[in-house]
Amino acid sequence: MKKGIGYAGVGTSFDDFLLIKEARKGITSTGNPFLTLILRDQTGEIEAKLWDATKEDELAYVEEKIVKVTGEINQFRGKNQLRISSIRLADPSDGVSISQFIENAPVDKDTLWKKITEALFEIQNPSIQRMTRAILKKYHEPLLDYPAAAKNHHEYASGLAHHIVSMLQIAGKLCELYPELNKDLLYAGIMLHDLGKLRELSGVVSTTYTLDGKLLGHIPMMVEEIGMTAKELQIEGEEVLILQHLVLSHHGKAEWGSPTPPLVREAEILHLIDLLDAKLNMLNRALDKVNPGEFTDRLFAMDNRAFYKPTFME
Amino acid sequence: MKKGIGYAGVGTSFDDFLLIKEARKGITSTGNPFLTLILRDQTGEIEAKLWDATKEDELAYVEEKIVKVTGEINQFRGKNQLRISSIRLADPSDGVSISQFIENAPVDKDTLWKKITEALFEIQNPSIQRMTRAILKKYHEPLLDYPAAAKNHHEYASGLAHHIVSMLQIAGKLCELYPELNKDLLYAGIMLHDLGKLRELSGVVSTTYTLDGKLLGHIPMMVEEIGMTAKELQIEGEEVLILQHLVLSHHGKAEWGSPTPPLVREAEILHLIDLLDAKLNMLNRALDKVNPGEFTDRLFAMDNRAFYKPTFME
Amino acid sequence: MKKGIGYAGVGTSFDDFLLIKEARKGITSTGNPFLTLILRDQTGEIEAKLWDATKEDELAYVEEKIVKVTGEINQFRGKNQLRISSIRLADPSDGVSISQFIENAPVDKDTLWKKITEALFEIQNPSIQRMTRAILKKYHEPLLDYPAAAKNHHEYASGLAHHIVSMLQIAGKLCELYPELNKDLLYAGIMLHDLGKLRELSGVVSTTYTLDGKLLGHIPMMVEEIGMTAKELQIEGEEVLILQHLVLSHHGKAEWGSPTPPLVREAEILHLIDLLDAKLNMLNRALDKVNPGEFTDRLFAMDNRAFYKPTFME
Amino acid sequence: MKKGIGYAGVGTSFDDFLLIKEARKGITSTGNPFLTLILRDQTGEIEAKLWDATKEDELAYVEEKIVKVTGEINQFRGKNQLRISSIRLADPSDGVSISQFIENAPVDKDTLWKKITEALFEIQNPSIQRMTRAILKKYHEPLLDYPAAAKNHHEYASGLAHHIVSMLQIAGKLCELYPELNKDLLYAGIMLHDLGKLRELSGVVSTTYTLDGKLLGHIPMMVEEIGMTAKELQIEGEEVLILQHLVLSHHGKAEWGSPTPPLVREAEILHLIDLLDAKLNMLNRALDKVNPGEFTDRLFAMDNRAFYKPTFME
Amino acid sequence: MKKGIGYAGVGTSFDDFLLIKEARKGITSTGNPFLTLILRDQTGEIEAKLWDATKEDELAYVEEKIVKVTGEINQFRGKNQLRISSIRLADPSDGVSISQFIENAPVDKDTLWKKITEALFEIQNPSIQRMTRAILKKYHEPLLDYPAAAKNHHEYASGLAHHIVSMLQIAGKLCELYPELNKDLLYAGIMLHDLGKLRELSGVVSTTYTLDGKLLGHIPMMVEEIGMTAKELQIEGEEVLILQHLVLSHHGKAEWGSPTPPLVREAEILHLIDLLDAKLNMLNRALDKVNPGEFTDRLFAMDNRAFYKPTFME
Amino acid sequence: MKKGIGYAGVGTSFDDFLLIKEARKGITSTGNPFLTLILRDQTGEIEAKLWDATKEDELAYVEEKIVKVTGEINQFRGKNQLRISSIRLADPSDGVSISQFIENAPVDKDTLWKKITEALFEIQNPSIQRMTRAILKKYHEPLLDYPAAAKNHHEYASGLAHHIVSMLQIAGKLCELYPELNKDLLYAGIMLHDLGKLRELSGVVSTTYTLDGKLLGHIPMMVEEIGMTAKELQIEGEEVLILQHLVLSHHGKAEWGSPTPPLVREAEILHLIDLLDAKLNMLNRALDKVNPGEFTDRLFAMDNRAFYKPTFME
Repeated sequence: MKKGIGYAGVGTSFDDFLLIKEARKGITSTGNPFLTLILRDQTGEIEAKLWDATKEDELAYVEEKIVKVTGEINQFRGKNQLRISSIRLADPSDGVSISQFIENAPVDKDTLWKKITEALFEIQNPSIQRMTRAILKKYHEPLLDYPAAAKNHHEYASGLAHHIVSMLQIAGKLCELYPELNKDLLYAGIMLHDLGKLRELSGVVSTTYTLDGKLLGHIPMMVEEIGMTAKELQIEGEEVLILQHLVLSHHGKAEWGSPTPPLVREAEILHLIDLLDAKLNMLNRALDKVNPGEFTDRLFAMDNRAFYKPTFME
Repeated sequence: MKKGIGYAGVGTSFDDFLLIKEARKGITSTGNPFLTLILRDQTGEIEAKLWDATKEDELAYVEEKIVKVTGEINQFRGKNQLRISSIRLADPSDGVSISQFIENAPVDKDTLWKKITEALFEIQNPSIQRMTRAILKKYHEPLLDYPAAAKNHHEYASGLAHHIVSMLQIAGKLCELYPELNKDLLYAGIMLHDLGKLRELSGVVSTTYTLDGKLLGHIPMMVEEIGMTAKELQIEGEEVLILQHLVLSHHGKAEWGSPTPPLVREAEILHLIDLLDAKLNMLNRALDKVNPGEFTDRLFAMDNRAFYKPTFME
Repeated sequence: MKKGIGYAGVGTSFDDFLLIKEARKGITSTGNPFLTLILRDQTGEIEAKLWDATKEDELAYVEEKIVKVTGEINQFRGKNQLRISSIRLADPSDGVSISQFIENAPVDKDTLWKKITEALFEIQNPSIQRMTRAILKKYHEPLLDYPAAAKNHHEYASGLAHHIVSMLQIAGKLCELYPELNKDLLYAGIMLHDLGKLRELSGVVSTTYTLDGKLLGHIPMMVEEIGMTAKELQIEGEEVLILQHLVLSHHGKAEWGSPTPPLVREAEILHLIDLLDAKLNMLNRALDKVNPGEFTDRLFAMDNRAFYKPTFME
Repeated sequence: MKKGIGYAGVGTSFDDFLLIKEARKGITSTGNPFLTLILRDQTGEIEAKLWDATKEDELAYVEEKIVKVTGEINQFRGKNQLRISSIRLADPSDGVSISQFIENAPVDKDTLWKKITEALFEIQNPSIQRMTRAILKKYHEPLLDYPAAAKNHHEYASGLAHHIVSMLQIAGKLCELYPELNKDLLYAGIMLHDLGKLRELSGVVSTTYTLDGKLLGHIPMMVEEIGMTAKELQIEGEEVLILQHLVLSHHGKAEWGSPTPPLVREAEILHLIDLLDAKLNMLNRALDKVNPGEFTDRLFAMDNRAFYKPTFME
Repeated sequence: MKKGIGYAGVGTSFDDFLLIKEARKGITSTGNPFLTLILRDQTGEIEAKLWDATKEDELAYVEEKIVKVTGEINQFRGKNQLRISSIRLADPSDGVSISQFIENAPVDKDTLWKKITEALFEIQNPSIQRMTRAILKKYHEPLLDYPAAAKNHHEYASGLAHHIVSMLQIAGKLCELYPELNKDLLYAGIMLHDLGKLRELSGVVSTTYTLDGKLLGHIPMMVEEIGMTAKELQIEGEEVLILQHLVLSHHGKAEWGSPTPPLVREAEILHLIDLLDAKLNMLNRALDKVNPGEFTDRLFAMDNRAFYKPTFME
Repeated sequence: MKKGIGYAGVGTSFDDFLLIKEARKGITSTGNPFLTLILRDQTGEIEAKLWDATKEDELAYVEEKIVKVTGEINQFRGKNQLRISSIRLADPSDGVSISQFIENAPVDKDTLWKKITEALFEIQNPSIQRMTRAILKKYHEPLLDYPAAAKNHHEYASGLAHHIVSMLQIAGKLCELYPELNKDLLYAGIMLHDLGKLRELSGVVSTTYTLDGKLLGHIPMMVEEIGMTAKELQIEGEEVLILQHLVLSHHGKAEWGSPTPPLVREAEILHLIDLLDAKLNMLNRALDKVNPGEFTDRLFAMDNRAFYKPTFME
C-alpha cells in the first residue's frame, strides 16, 4: 500500500507530520469552539476536526505550519475525515520543512528547464524566438515553482513547467505526423500560453487568485506582456499579432474565456493539446487512487464524471 | 417628405448624386454580365442593379466613386431596390465631394471635442486623468472621424465621439442622482472603452474589420494600450488595473466578448450606459423612418425585433 | 463604526432589541430541541441559535415578536451567527415597536408620494393619465408600505415607492437628453410596472409569495388590472394596449417572465431603467458594508458576483 | 390519385379554379414586371409565377380573388411551382365561392358545437361551468370559423373548434383511465385555453397576427378575459385563479410563452394533451401526402424533422 | 388518516416494523458514532438516526433487514426524520417478510401479465408480433418484479409492468380516436421500450444502476437485443429497423438520451405517451400525500416544481 | 499553379473532363429549361449551368457520367460557378474512368491496410484482439473504399481507413508519452469507432445517408455489431462491455450523439484523438487552397470559422 494521507483508508489510524493548508474556526451546535484544518502531504489532503479547541490552539494551528498528528480516518458525508486524537507543532528537531509536504511534479526542475530550453532552440523564426526567449528569461524562476492551476490539473510545484513540457512533447510528435504544422508558432504558443498565471495566482503553497487575476485574468495580461515585449525588443511584423492571438484564443471559446476563438491552425491545435494534456493529467492521477473494478471520485473539471477502471487493467 | 435615398418610397423615381459604397459583378441566368451597386447618401443606402454592364462600366463604377443616377424605386424580396435607367460618373463641374454622402453625427466635431475635453477636466484623480488625457491626445484625430461600429449603432462619421459624448451626459446625470458613483472612473471608462475600435475598424467610408480587429478585437487591444500608457507615464497604483478592468468587462459577459464580467460598480454601470445609448440610437433612427401605426424593419442588433410606433405618437 | 446588527463584527458582543423575522424548531444531533431565529433590525439580519429551548420558548419566540437579546457574534460556514446567551420578550415598558426594526426607504413616505404625484401631473395624454391616476389612487396606501421585492433590491418598507421614484428621476433626465422619448408612456409605465407586487407579495414584515403570486405572478395580474380599469373608465384607444404591453414586456425576455419582449421604444427603455435602478440599489448597499480593498458578499441577483471596492475610493 | 393542388405531381398539367391567398409584384433580372401568386384550394397551396404581368393584371389578381388557371407543375429549389399558361378571374356564372377553397375541419360546425356543448354540461362545479359557458357563448360564432393557428397545425376553417373537440375526447378517455383527474377543470381549461386566438389572429382567409396579438399575445388576453368574466358574473373563489393559471401555463415553459409553468396537475395534463393533439394533426396531414417508403417535407413546428412512412404501412 | 410511515405527521409517535433500505455510519461533531438508517414500508420512507450506536448495532442494522422501531417524527431541514427511542431486529415469530415492506403496483402481477398478453395478441403484423413475443417471453419473470425506475416514477415492485399496461391503455384509446395510428407498432414499442431496464437496474429492493447500466444505458442495450432476436428468429424486413428506431428514439431528444429523435409517427407518440403516464404517476402519488390548499414537495423529475392542490378538490 | 477544378480561379477558362456528381433540372424566370450540374474531379467540385437544355441533354447528363466541358469560371453569390460553353459525354476512346475523378486518400489502400494490420497485431488482450479482427475481416473491402464522412473531413475514397491510420499514429505516440494508457483498448476503439458508417453511408461516389443511417445512426449499429460478434465468438467478460462503451461514447456528449459520455480514460482519449485528426484534416485541406495573408472559406464543421494563413508561412 502506498504511504501518505492521499492513500489512507477509512478506519485506519494515522500518525505522521502534515502541513496545515487552511484553518477555520467553528462553533459546535452545543456552543463549543473547534478548528477545521485542511492538512496535506505530497500525496493529497484531508479535512480534520480538532474539537474543544482552546484560544492557544487557534493561535498555534494556522496556515503553513507543520504539525505532528495522530488520529483515525473516518468517513463523513462520503468524504474522508481525520479525527485528531493528538496534535502538536513540529519543532526544529523534527527536521521537517514545508517543501516536503508540497506535491512536486514527477520531473525535476532542471530537467524541465532543459527541455524547455531545447524546444526554444528549435524555433527558427527570429521574431518568435526572441520574444519567447525574452519572456521565458524574465519568468524563469517562478515558472519552475508555480503550479499550472489552483486546482484540477497540474496543481503541484513545477506544475506549470511540467504542463508545458508535456504539451511540447505532444506537439513535437504531431509535427512529425502532420508536417504542415508550423512548429515555431506551436512551440512558442505552448511556452507562453499560461505564463499569465504567474501573475494570476498567488504561488504554490496555498494557491489563491490575486486581485489582478480576478479583475483581468491570465489571458489578457499575457497578451499585454507580449505586446510590451515586442515593443521593447523593437520587433514588428505579423508574428507579434499571431502570437498574441494564440494566447488570446487558447481557451477555445468566448464562454471559456477567449473573446476570440482560434482563427489560425496552430491556435486551434494549441487549444486541443492543452485540453488533451490537462485531461490526461487529471485522469491518470484520479485512476491511480482506485483499484480495477472501481469508479474514481467525481472529477469537477471533467463535467463531474466519475471514471471507471476496468477489471482487466492492472 | 424628407429628401434622400433613405426616405424614397416604392414606385417613386429618383434622380440625384449617390456614392458607390460597394460594387459587385454578376452574371444573369441568361449569361449576361451586370453590376450590383450599393449606393448611399447621408440618409441611407440602397441596392441598385445595372443590367447589361459593359467592361467599361465595370471599370468605372467602383467603390468610393460618386455617380449621377436616374431610376425607379422597386421592391425586391421585401427590400427597396433602385432600378437604374441612366448612370454617369460625377465630374468636377458637379461640385460634389465624398463627405457630402457620408452620414455625419448630428453634432459637429468641435462641439464633440469640447464636451469630451470638459469632461476630462472634471476628472480629479491625477493617475486616471493623466492616462486618459494621454490616450485621447494620441487618438484625437481619428476619434473625431470614426464611426462607433461598422453597422447597427452610431455607424456614421464622428459616431464614436458622438456615442462617447451621449454616454458622458447620461453618466453626468446618474452621478447627480446616485452620488456614490465615482465620476472619475465612470468618465474615464466611457472615454476609453471603445477606442480600440480605431485599430479594429478600417475607417469611416467602407467600414470593415482589420486583421488586428479580427484576430484580437478592440477590447484586448485597449487593455494593452492602457498598460503601455501607464508604463510610459510611470503611473503605478490600482487605478491602472481598475481602468483596464473597466475596458475589459464593458461587454458584460464572456459570451459577449468580456472574458471577465464587471466586478467593480462603475464597470457594471459603464456596461449599462453603453447598452442604453446604443439602443436609443438604433431605436430613434429606425422609428424616424416609419409613420405612427407602423412597425420598423427588424433590427438585427435588437434580437431581430421590429418595433411599433403607436398611433398616438407624432 | 455604524451601529446595528448589519454592522456587528465577528467576535463582538451584542446587547439590544431585535425583531424575530422567522422562527424554526430543530433537534440537535444529540436529540435536544433548539430554536433557529432570524433576527433583524433596520440595518440587517442575523441567524441566531437558542440552545436547549423549552416548550415555553417555542411558544414565546415566534415571528413578529420583539426580543431583548445578549450574545456574541460568531462565524458559521462563512456567515455571521449570533450565539444567544440571554433572551426575553420585549414588554410595553421597553417602548419599542415593530416599525423601528423594519428597514425603511431612505426617503419618507410623504416625499415619495409627492414626487409620484408630481410626475403624474406631467402626463399630458388624458387616457394614460386617467388610467394611471385611478390605479395609483386605488393602491395608494399599500404602495407606500410595500417593498419592491422579497429580497435582492429595495427589500425594505416603502421600497416599491422608492424604486418608482428613483426610476422616474432617471426617466426625467433621459427625456431631457433624448427628446424623442414619450414621457407620458415612460412615466406611466414606471408607476404601474410593479404594482402587481402588491398582490404578489404578502406584505412588508415577513415577505413571502401569495398563492396568486405563485400561480399568476405580478405581470399578468397587472395587465388584467389595466384592462379592467380602462373598461371601468370607458377608455378606449391604443393607449390601453400600449400600457398593457409596457407592463407585460418589462422583464425584457420570455425566460425572465415577459411572454412578449419590448416592441415599443418606451417599453425597452422602461426595462433598462428598471435594471439600472435595481442594480445600483443592490450595489450601493452591498458596497456600503465593506471597506476599500475588499470584496462584497456574492450578490445572488447579480449572477452571484462579488464586487470589489477599489482602495482609492473612500 | 386524390384531386386538388395539394396532390398535383411535378410534370402534370393543371386546369382548375384556385383562390389567390397572396399576391406580390416583382421585377425580373431583365427588368420585366411579373406577379408571384400564392394560390390555394382545400387541399393545399402552391406558388405560381405570372410572367410579363401588365398593369391590368396587377390590379385584377389580388388577394381573396378566385381565378381559373391552366399551367404546368414544375419544381423550383425543391418546391413545387405552378407555371401559368393562362389565367382569368372567375365570374358569377362559374358558380364558385371562397368557402370552397378554404380547407375545412373534417367535422362540420354543428357537430363540433354539439360536442363542445355536451362537454360543457358535464362540468359540475358551478363556478367553473358558469365562467366557461359565458365565454363560449360570447365567442360562439368566431370560434366555429377560426383556425387554431396561422400555420403548422389545425390551420383551417373551424380548426380551433376541431382542436378543442379532439382534446376533449382525449381528456375524456384519460379521465376514465386516471379517475384522480378533475374533469371539470380539464374540460374548462381545454375549451378556454386558446380562445385568445380569436383576438390574436385576423381570421380564417389570409390569417395574420393582429396588433393586439403581436403586443400582448393570446395568453395574457385570455387571462384578463377570465378575470373580467368572473367579475361580471360576481364569481369569487379559487376557481377563478386556477382557471386563469391553466390558461397562463398551458405553453408549459417561460421560453414557450407561459411566464408561470404548470403548478396544478390538470394544468400539466392540459399542456400535454395540447401537444399530443397538435402533433398528431401535423403528422397525420403530412404523412397523408407521401407514399410508404418516403419521407415527408421537414415540419418546422416539429423541430424541422422529416418523418418516414414505413413500407409496411398502407 | 392513512396508516404507514409515508403518512406519519410531525410530532406523532411511531411504533411498527420497517425495512432498512440503506444504512450509513457517522460520527457526531462530538466524536460519537451513530447510524443513519433509511427505513421504509409500502407507503414511503424516512431517515432515522440511531445515536450512540455500538459496534453490535453497526453489524445488526444493515440493508434489507427488518426492524421493530419506536420513536417520534421530527422535522429536520424541512424533511421528516424519525428519532429512534428503541429498535430491535425482527425475529421469525414476528411473522413479517420483506415483500410486505416493498411498495407494490396497485394492480397484481397476474392481471398485469394478462393485459400485456392480450395486447400482444392484438398485434397483427407477424414479424412485429414474433419479435415482441420472443423478448417478452425471455424476460417474463423479472418484468413482473422490476420497478420502472430507480426513483421518480413507478419506482415500486411490478412498476415496469404497471407502466407498460397504463401506456397500452392510453395507446388503445388514442388508436380509437386517431385510426391512422399503427397499433401494431405502438403496442410493440410500448412493451419493449424500457425492457433494457431489466439489465440497467439491480432489482427491486435497493435499486441501483449496474455497471452495464452506467456504461451503456438501457436504450442501446435494447436496440441490440431486438437486433439479436431478429437474427435468431431469422426475421428480416423494415419491421426490425423501425422497432429498433422506436426504442432508440423514445426519450425524444439527444440531450435526453436518444441519439436519434423520433422520425416515425408512432415513435413520436410513444415518446408522448411515456411522458404522460410517467408524469401522471408522479403527480397522483405526490398529491395523494397533501391536503387541499397545500403544495406538494418539490418534484425533482418535474423541473423541481411543487404542485398545488386546489381547495375545491377533495 | 496547381491543376484541377478546385484550384481554377475566377475569370479563367476551363477545358477538361469532369464527373457529374449531381444533376438537377430547373426552369429560368423566363420559362426555359436548364440543367444545374455539380461537376467534380480529384481536386474539388463546382456548380455549372447548362442553359437551354434539351430533353436529350436531360437524359444524357446524369449522375456518375463523365463529361468533357469547356467554359469559363464566373463568380455567383460569392461562390465559383462554371459557365458551360460546350459539353459532351466522354466516350471509350477518351480513356477516362470514374476513379480518376474521385478524390483519394493521400496514402494507397495497401499501405493503409498494412498499417491497420500491424496495429491489430500489437493488441495483446486476446478478447479485444479477436473481436476487432473478426469485425475488420468482415468489413475489409468496404473499409478500404469508404470515405469517413459525407462531407467535412476525410470525405474521399479510403477516407475512413486514412482517418483510422492517422488516429492510430497519434495514439501510438501518446502511448509512448503516457504509458498509463491501455494501448489495446485505444487501438481497438480507433479501428472500430466509425465502422458503422459503412452501413450509415451509401458509398463513395455520391455519398448520402441510408435509411438505416437516418433512423439508427452509425453508433448504435456498431454497438450492436460488437455485441453480436462477441456472441458468435463466445467471448464474455468486461472487454465486450468496455469496447461497446468506447464506440457508444466516442462523440463525447449526448448532444453530439453519444447517449453516454466517456467514463473510461481510453474512451475520453479516443474522443479527443478523433477530434484532433478530423480538425487537422479539415484545416490542412482548407489552408492548402489559400495563399499566405488570406482567410479560408468558412468551415461549417469548425463553428463556421474562416481561418487565417499568416504571411510568414509559406
